[in-house]
Amino acid sequence: MQLSLFQIDNYGPWTVTPEPRRETDLQSLQARLYADIADFVGRSDGYVFFDRFDNMFGVTNGMDRTDHVSLQEQVRNSYPVTLSVGIGVDELPFEALGKASRALQQEGSAQDEHRQERLAGTATADPGPVTVAHFDIVGATDKYTDREHPFDTTIAVQRAVLSLSEHLRDEYDSIAHFVGGDNIIAICPPLESTAFTDIREHIAERTGIELQVGFGRGQTAHSAGYRAKEGLEICRESGQRVAYPQTPSDD
Amino acid sequence: MQLSLFQIDNYGPWTVTPEPRRETDLQSLQARLYADIADFVGRSDGYVFFDRFDNMFGVTNGMDRTDHVSLQEQVRNSYPVTLSVGIGVDELPFEALGKASRALQQEGSAQDEHRQERLAGTATADPGPVTVAHFDIVGATDKYTDREHPFDTTIAVQRAVLSLSEHLRDEYDSIAHFVGGDNIIAICPPLESTAFTDIREHIAERTGIELQVGFGRGQTAHSAGYRAKEGLEICRESGQRVAYPQTPSDD
Amino acid sequence: MQLSLFQIDNYGPWTVTPEPRRETDLQSLQARLYADIADFVGRSDGYVFFDRFDNMFGVTNGMDRTDHVSLQEQVRNSYPVTLSVGIGVDELPFEALGKASRALQQEGSAQDEHRQERLAGTATADPGPVTVAHFDIVGATDKYTDREHPFDTTIAVQRAVLSLSEHLRDEYDSIAHFVGGDNIIAICPPLESTAFTDIREHIAERTGIELQVGFGRGQTAHSAGYRAKEGLEICRESGQRVAYPQTPSDD
Amino acid sequence: MQLSLFQIDNYGPWTVTPEPRRETDLQSLQARLYADIADFVGRSDGYVFFDRFDNMFGVTNGMDRTDHVSLQEQVRNSYPVTLSVGIGVDELPFEALGKASRALQQEGSAQDEHRQERLAGTATADPGPVTVAHFDIVGATDKYTDREHPFDTTIAVQRAVLSLSEHLRDEYDSIAHFVGGDNIIAICPPLESTAFTDIREHIAERTGIELQVGFGRGQTAHSAGYRAKEGLEICRESGQRVAYPQTPSDD
Repeated sequence: MQLSLFQIDNYGPWTVTPEPRRETDLQSLQARLYADIADFVGRSDGYVFFDRFDNMFGVTNGMDRTDHVSLQEQVRNSYPVTLSVGIGVDELPFEALGKASRALQQEGSAQDEHRQERLAGTATADPGPVTVAHFDIVGATDKYTDREHPFDTTIAVQRAVLSLSEHLRDEYDSIAHFVGGDNIIAICPPLESTAFTDIREHIAERTGIELQVGFGRGQTAHSAGYRAKEGLEICRESGQRVAYPQTPSDD
Repeated sequence: MQLSLFQIDNYGPWTVTPEPRRETDLQSLQARLYADIADFVGRSDGYVFFDRFDNMFGVTNGMDRTDHVSLQEQVRNSYPVTLSVGIGVDELPFEALGKASRALQQEGSAQDEHRQERLAGTATADPGPVTVAHFDIVGATDKYTDREHPFDTTIAVQRAVLSLSEHLRDEYDSIAHFVGGDNIIAICPPLESTAFTDIREHIAERTGIELQVGFGRGQTAHSAGYRAKEGLEICRESGQRVAYPQTPSDD
Repeated sequence: MQLSLFQIDNYGPWTVTPEPRRETDLQSLQARLYADIADFVGRSDGYVFFDRFDNMFGVTNGMDRTDHVSLQEQVRNSYPVTLSVGIGVDELPFEALGKASRALQQEGSAQDEHRQERLAGTATADPGPVTVAHFDIVGATDKYTDREHPFDTTIAVQRAVLSLSEHLRDEYDSIAHFVGGDNIIAICPPLESTAFTDIREHIAERTGIELQVGFGRGQTAHSAGYRAKEGLEICRESGQRVAYPQTPSDD
Repeated sequence: MQLSLFQIDNYGPWTVTPEPRRETDLQSLQARLYADIADFVGRSDGYVFFDRFDNMFGVTNGMDRTDHVSLQEQVRNSYPVTLSVGIGVDELPFEALGKASRALQQEGSAQDEHRQERLAGTATADPGPVTVAHFDIVGATDKYTDREHPFDTTIAVQRAVLSLSEHLRDEYDSIAHFVGGDNIIAICPPLESTAFTDIREHIAERTGIELQVGFGRGQTAHSAGYRAKEGLEICRESGQRVAYPQTPSDD
């Protein structure tokens, strides 16, 4: 699969030049830039995650070099900041992102004022399939949102996210990311149901939090992720904890 | 101080009705809604955090009941979803947010389709001062962004965020939140420099991550937070690890 | 009343430097900038019109100098362009806008690269009342949208807008602006119903287009404009062509 | 060429239900929706014009039926309103838009609450070339912006737009649209330089306004329009009034 790393050029220094910029303006800027990138990547059936906002990454199967350049152009024409991008291809998501990052790091520091709008790495026309897993917390609204202090709910979700991120990285070369509410999406190599059963148990043991998960495969993050969402709906309705929707034919 | 909890009404069910909505569309929606709320609250010199996106919270000193209603109106006129809001006032941020949440929980479940655009709790004209602390990781670009795998950097930041969130809640009734990059902002009662020195040491022991922090006080999150940013700039330039900019007069 | 002229600094040259920028990016930029200014001004119960996009103007009763500076700051932190602003106060809208413009013209050319983020003219705490008239075309959907070629409808609306703009300027020192669909909003001195009857007849004679109009007065564009909208609803329901909603007390 | 008409479903009634919505919210909504459509269509190298905002239209060469459905989906997931679309194909732009509109009108009234998210007409894989002309007013900043009352400038531009719209429709089956500043873009069949010389003269006679124009041809609005922009730059630099940049090969 193909992953891209999107990095705002020299962003840290910009936020305090000539003096610290208003925090809510920075929050708006970061959120809108992420939304625009999500729209752009989504148009090619990719997924993108906000990560640390000054760095974002996503599955960009279906986006060629020209598409990446168009995105950089759109950002330059819309925002007071510019974007450098690294592209990496590998069967393992963690490796793909690593390649994207190393390609970009070779172009210079993220805080080098002369490193601007670089596009490093090579896009591929045949990135191979992707497996997407969509997790949430069993009964989150009942157990947490309507009952607990909201910050305790947030901390519980953060624990689940961190624990899942570490475990998926260490054991499965996968990348997990929080996507809002109690939802976590992971980009994986072609894991089977037994792996997800093991993952659920590991997280429950470590954090006491019970997850359910739907997963799917496809040629794009959207096609795989849509099946994962359908799987999660099956879990919600049936009480099943891991669901892999059968599809008559892959896309 | 006054904190407000912003909750998208019945959002979970909406995201899968009549079938799962496109993930990148949901990501865009959440990010743009957060950006609009940040702009709105920022206009009154408040701060708002994206939290779990379906729940957001912020310091809303200076926003009265009418302002909150205006925000709800703007959201209704701009988005396919609506917003309920809880308001809480307390000297302790954790308590203020708890009050905001309990007021809202009494209006019904976040997933009750009949609970729509509620405004619970009472705004105050005299919310009292706020202390804002702005943390970042010492040497993050050198040590992490330009050197490490980006997902390892993200995990390191997540550990710092989680550790700081837990510690500040347990020991200081404070609320910490990730705001992008390696930056974490905490809303606090009137802590002194010694407390922040202790906090830094605690996090370093638990996670191995070295933080630096500027903090400030003011009648609004912006005035306190701006001083905190100035303090952090002092740290970055001087090597000092905790900075509290002296100001001739409070605003 | 107080009117403000918002002008993008050195915008023309920017759109073709170093080479012509993508037209759809420029269209997005202009539209989003206008939307942000509309949100900002709307928060103070003002109105703003897109005018020629590189120049926008609005009724800014209730916005002081600091508010204008905050808007300039928000734009600088959000966009690749900056904004200069002129403020004018007069009982006659055309004069108020003229004053705003002359104050800004004295700061230098709109295409002077050294004229950046100027704020010219003086805001007033007591701008006096405003009269807003909200026009639309009688039976537009039936007569035009569902029946005619859309470009012929557009041309008909443009004729009405131009004719109304010229007539209101020449005879009433008022400013009219297209606001979407078949709607035109005019900012006026305290005109009476007879004036609007005359205006309708003039436009019908010149263009063959029959308008209806609600108008209202208030201390802000929003309070006046809201009554104007209510008046227009009365017209739509009753067949009346000019409506001035009676209100027990002014705001 | 292929033109698409984008129409907000039942928008007029929505703006006043249950009572008139805040005008600045409507302005923001319309502008942001237009910006999103511009981004979406621009991604396929199309152009889109804001027209009357509740109706927008554009050249959509390169967008198939699925792309149009994706746009409708994105709008539904982002806004409190939905979009119906008509598609028309013809060598003459005015005819293409007419076909798009008639296809949509047959689906029901724009204010029929049961007509929602319709997609009428048929997209083509081979829409044929498009000619784009990009006009502006000679010396606009010197003559108008820096010198005249801004509303007089606006009226002058409106006269040029209206006059050009009428003339291009009547004589050349073309569609002209204001795009900000003193810029007007026309979508044309394959006209020659002599036609644009005649058009300039006609407008000068009728309005006293001197236009200059660059035009270009291409398989998409962007490729044609980019050459038109280059042509206009040639005019600005050389004093030439009509420019058609020679290109070694068409795209």
